[in-house]
Amino acid sequence: MRNTFGTRLTVTLFGESHGAEIGCVLDGLKPGLPVDAARISDLLARRRPNGPTATARVEPDPFRIVSGVYQGRTTGAPLCILIPNTQARSGDYRDLADTPRPGHADYTAFVKYRGFADPRGGGHLSGRLTAPLVAAAGVVLPALEAGGIRIGTHLARCGGVEDRGFSDLPADLTALSHASFPVLDPERGRAMREAILSAAEAGDSVGGVLETAVTGLPAGLGEPWFDTVEGLLAHALFSIPAVKGVEFGAGFALADLRGSEADDPIRMDGDRVVTAANHNGGVNGGITNGMPLIVRTVVKPTPTIRTPRRTVSLASRSDAEITVQGRHDPAIAPRAAIVQTAVTALVLCDLLAEAEG
Amino acid sequence: MRNTFGTRLTVTLFGESHGAEIGCVLDGLKPGLPVDAARISDLLARRRPNGPTATARVEPDPFRIVSGVYQGRTTGAPLCILIPNTQARSGDYRDLADTPRPGHADYTAFVKYRGFADPRGGGHLSGRLTAPLVAAAGVVLPALEAGGIRIGTHLARCGGVEDRGFSDLPADLTALSHASFPVLDPERGRAMREAILSAAEAGDSVGGVLETAVTGLPAGLGEPWFDTVEGLLAHALFSIPAVKGVEFGAGFALADLRGSEADDPIRMDGDRVVTAANHNGGVNGGITNGMPLIVRTVVKPTPTIRTPRRTVSLASRSDAEITVQGRHDPAIAPRAAIVQTAVTALVLCDLLAEAEG
Amino acid sequence: MRNTFGTRLTVTLFGESHGAEIGCVLDGLKPGLPVDAARISDLLARRRPNGPTATARVEPDPFRIVSGVYQGRTTGAPLCILIPNTQARSGDYRDLADTPRPGHADYTAFVKYRGFADPRGGGHLSGRLTAPLVAAAGVVLPALEAGGIRIGTHLARCGGVEDRGFSDLPADLTALSHASFPVLDPERGRAMREAILSAAEAGDSVGGVLETAVTGLPAGLGEPWFDTVEGLLAHALFSIPAVKGVEFGAGFALADLRGSEADDPIRMDGDRVVTAANHNGGVNGGITNGMPLIVRTVVKPTPTIRTPRRTVSLASRSDAEITVQGRHDPAIAPRAAIVQTAVTALVLCDLLAEAEG
Amino acid sequence: MRNTFGTRLTVTLFGESHGAEIGCVLDGLKPGLPVDAARISDLLARRRPNGPTATARVEPDPFRIVSGVYQGRTTGAPLCILIPNTQARSGDYRDLADTPRPGHADYTAFVKYRGFADPRGGGHLSGRLTAPLVAAAGVVLPALEAGGIRIGTHLARCGGVEDRGFSDLPADLTALSHASFPVLDPERGRAMREAILSAAEAGDSVGGVLETAVTGLPAGLGEPWFDTVEGLLAHALFSIPAVKGVEFGAGFALADLRGSEADDPIRMDGDRVVTAANHNGGVNGGITNGMPLIVRTVVKPTPTIRTPRRTVSLASRSDAEITVQGRHDPAIAPRAAIVQTAVTALVLCDLLAEAEG
Repeated sequence: MRNTFGTRLTVTLFGESHGAEIGCVLDGLKPGLPVDAARISDLLARRRPNGPTATARVEPDPFRIVSGVYQGRTTGAPLCILIPNTQARSGDYRDLADTPRPGHADYTAFVKYRGFADPRGGGHLSGRLTAPLVAAAGVVLPALEAGGIRIGTHLARCGGVEDRGFSDLPADLTALSHASFPVLDPERGRAMREAILSAAEAGDSVGGVLETAVTGLPAGLGEPWFDTVEGLLAHALFSIPAVKGVEFGAGFALADLRGSEADDPIRMDGDRVVTAANHNGGVNGGITNGMPLIVRTVVKPTPTIRTPRRTVSLASRSDAEITVQGRHDPAIAPRAAIVQTAVTALVLCDLLAEAEG
Repeated sequence: MRNTFGTRLTVTLFGESHGAEIGCVLDGLKPGLPVDAARISDLLARRRPNGPTATARVEPDPFRIVSGVYQGRTTGAPLCILIPNTQARSGDYRDLADTPRPGHADYTAFVKYRGFADPRGGGHLSGRLTAPLVAAAGVVLPALEAGGIRIGTHLARCGGVEDRGFSDLPADLTALSHASFPVLDPERGRAMREAILSAAEAGDSVGGVLETAVTGLPAGLGEPWFDTVEGLLAHALFSIPAVKGVEFGAGFALADLRGSEADDPIRMDGDRVVTAANHNGGVNGGITNGMPLIVRTVVKPTPTIRTPRRTVSLASRSDAEITVQGRHDPAIAPRAAIVQTAVTALVLCDLLAEAEG
Repeated sequence: MRNTFGTRLTVTLFGESHGAEIGCVLDGLKPGLPVDAARISDLLARRRPNGPTATARVEPDPFRIVSGVYQGRTTGAPLCILIPNTQARSGDYRDLADTPRPGHADYTAFVKYRGFADPRGGGHLSGRLTAPLVAAAGVVLPALEAGGIRIGTHLARCGGVEDRGFSDLPADLTALSHASFPVLDPERGRAMREAILSAAEAGDSVGGVLETAVTGLPAGLGEPWFDTVEGLLAHALFSIPAVKGVEFGAGFALADLRGSEADDPIRMDGDRVVTAANHNGGVNGGITNGMPLIVRTVVKPTPTIRTPRRTVSLASRSDAEITVQGRHDPAIAPRAAIVQTAVTALVLCDLLAEAEG
Repeated sequence: MRNTFGTRLTVTLFGESHGAEIGCVLDGLKPGLPVDAARISDLLARRRPNGPTATARVEPDPFRIVSGVYQGRTTGAPLCILIPNTQARSGDYRDLADTPRPGHADYTAFVKYRGFADPRGGGHLSGRLTAPLVAAAGVVLPALEAGGIRIGTHLARCGGVEDRGFSDLPADLTALSHASFPVLDPERGRAMREAILSAAEAGDSVGGVLETAVTGLPAGLGEPWFDTVEGLLAHALFSIPAVKGVEFGAGFALADLRGSEADDPIRMDGDRVVTAANHNGGVNGGITNGMPLIVRTVVKPTPTIRTPRRTVSLASRSDAEITVQGRHDPAIAPRAAIVQTAVTALVLCDLLAEAEG
């Protein structure tokens, strides 16, 4: 399946950066879920660039649900969300078709689609397409939360600055749900924004790490082979443009730990089976263990190109140079935080539907 | 789908650690591919523990192909491989059903399968099940190689010792195909084995990082959304027991790079479009760009438990202790190298079938 | 998967009879296919009721392609088609929510969707949703035809009147592509329309049989198990509302034939392997044999309800009566002919993509 | 997916008519279901040819479950069943590779598998492969029955003789579960067997119609589009070799009925919503309505070839003749009855798992 993800709850994504509308079809929703347009708007707003750390392109992101909702509730039929592209400026990209931008997907799209891809703003391969994913998550998040499941993502590292780690998860998730910049420590957030601005002034960009925590998941979700919780989440998270790595729990740090150091002792907490540490990030053998799910991604620095970069001319098959003046983020990671929350929410809803029926 | 992976080329895995046989069904193979039993045996031998760094359990891994091959070639019908379990010793595990081992999947399997899972040696959730995956890869690797695609995995880090990185890929891949221990620098390999032995003597275990390189892939494989090359590979690689992170190209190191530093300039190399660096690990926008694919996983230290560990009794719902004398690897990472090669091969065959038809 | 069909070429259907828009997402299209809006319009016009044999509801069926097409050609990205519902009159159906119409899906939708389904005009369970399927077929039919494949459907039987059978397939398919009423013998078409009118005047409706022929298919499409050509086509054709049976070649008549009578002798026709008869309808062992594919469906008489019918009140759980004045077809079969052509085209495109890559 | 069917409960089929073993992998089973080997044996015995109406090939059908069962119950892991081929006589088929049998899949398999298919006894395209499907059904039928669901199939028509229709379903299904020949009226069964014998003596074969009834299904299973109950069942039933048509309820007879005649009035039966007639065979709009599900297939006469038949030589691309002395059924329909029950059971289990979770 190409642009569809999920087993029981599926999302089918369509649209191009500079087309009339982009959108998605969400299928497999339970009937009767209240649909909260304000919540969807709020999530879309969090994805929107705001302030000098992000692109100057303003996306008001109005949206419209054209199916699957009746009298404010899901019907169980597929729910299609459309988001118009109101401010596309195709001219910025007109010369890119021949000279692919290094680090972007221009060349790979050219090969894959045999030269027929819509080149305007990346076409179908644009970060713009994450907006329908965020809107889709806005449909399902209230139901997750009603089931006691909470999800939040913070920018754990950006421009060389590290946010503090999760400590008191309920309070941290609440704080993140209100935060205008997705960090746990506002002071470090300010330092990150300064680092981003400094890179932007140099015509450059920075990468980052996004860390998501999920609380309230039942034990027993996922499969030991192939459809592990880690595998399913990673599969989906790599769709977030610029993500180049995914790790769970202690992640790559486990390479240098001994088994005795990475131990997650099991104990009773009242009636619940819990672990005293969480090096495994809430997953053992591909299956949730009831502890908080912890997943981190690395987001590469945007290959923004204000200074000339080496590339080739696809027509003449010769070396060339490219300079791009288009609007781009000096750091995509802060805006990707809500996308990571959204993608995580959609995958978990699918897993819960698989478990619950 | 639970125990099936792939779209055009699918693998369906079955069996338990201490059952009569384990195996898999490989479907979607092109008809007419020569099947080389010696190659399959060789790969299975590489997965087998050898020497003091691995478990004392000896697995001769004979196998038998019961369908899908006629006169030495694939027929295009599903190919079923069976591997008998000859040396299972169930007694070692008899007490584990009630006291789940920390860090293992005992508790999550208990919840998921409602107490009906086969507990012997982990049952279906055993690393033993990677043997059929390796055998399946043995069926497809000759066809990949005939198409100019080569795959190799080295233990990039283990027990605090780092192998040298890939330098001359053709030579490195050839060396790895012969190596008795999967490293590029035999000296560092010896240091790793010493570190593993040292941990083993302390009743402990170590983690590691596995790095795979693939050369000869065409540009244009993969999808920009959901079925990205990274997402598909990560999805499958997280099935390797103990893998807790997957990264491509420069991976998590990209968090601290600026865009100008992570640049992969595009240029012509004769008739081919290449990049001068490979921070993206051969993938842009989820699609291969024709450069070597570089993927790394982190393998956590085996939660081997020779000293008492805290756990619970599931029957009495109270805290308990567990000590395990069973045979376990002080380091699973070295043996997992061939599994990582195998899983990568299977995913790439699927992607190539998708592209080629 | 709920509202998605296909493996390589997928269609995802969404919308409700009285919503703002209905539509579909077509994914897996090859890049570079010319998209002919006039052809799509023409097909939609063939689905539209015209004249006294069909519902008085007029559906102008304008449509809009919001993604997947650039400069008149498919890009390879998902193609979303939207069709507005311009003339919905919800009032006609307001009382139906409690008293399900016999023979319709009102009761089954009530149970399945737990009372949350959109009841207006059948909601998502309306024949109206076949319009996007027809539009989707309009995207792929030119490519099929360019590959030498032709598809046509005639009303083989309706209201007790039988059309003549296919005889000269190239001429018959050409005639059907122009026919205002989908029959091979216009005289019998007139008799059918009289039978339909006669039933309509009695407040009643009639059923029919639709027969599709496909020429130009290569041998070798389909699988022997599960994804047989017959199974895939039947799976999709049962989505056409009111279809209650699907048969291939001689179909149910084979029950009373001996093997010697049902023989399809194989012979050479120049360089081609052909069969002298076609009792198997172009499929042996689930796989196309290169002969014309022949498939027939039975379309039940619309359960139109001008005279009182027995039903129940779902609220009071007691027997009730229902009379419906809404616009309905006295015979759905004539309009379903183009839908059957469309569904067949979509399934065959998927099979061809599977075979060709 | 090629040899895998199902969404939540999947069956993966493998093996060849004359290979060492055939089998299947059943995945998605709930943990804890008792597995009754005697029931599986009994079902396999019903599929076995017995008496002069069937092939002289004797298949004792021992089987072995190699995974997914522990202490007599399903574990929730994939269950693999193997059935050895004990009496294969490959010599009978050695000349068939070049001269495809009319009406069989020899030619289509040759094209599809490019000459590499195992030709012995039809290889993977043999009715022998229905044995693992029957065995798989033996695993799930007890659970269906424990849930109040009963399934039975009778030979509704064969050799020009018609069985009586279902009347008292509970009694009829009980009678069928014991019947040595799958008919409701033993007298007509004798007439059928005489007709079959008469055809066999003439070196010929006969077709038939199989009718399955399912009672106890809940309302609400299935989807309105694509995954209709009819579409899913038909998809699977067309895998039964020789099936060329599938119809539900009144089926093709609906072509000649008026809406008023095909009416299924809805009424209360105590607390249950029922219909007074069942022209729709238990399905409205693709979704079960709680009435008995009624599905019929037509089974074509075996293209047995004792007298010379016209074919071609694939090597010389010229016309040829073929005469076959191998063991074949003069009527496949009687043996296919249990296969139809099995396939129906597997599809319904999948639908129930989809509904129940």
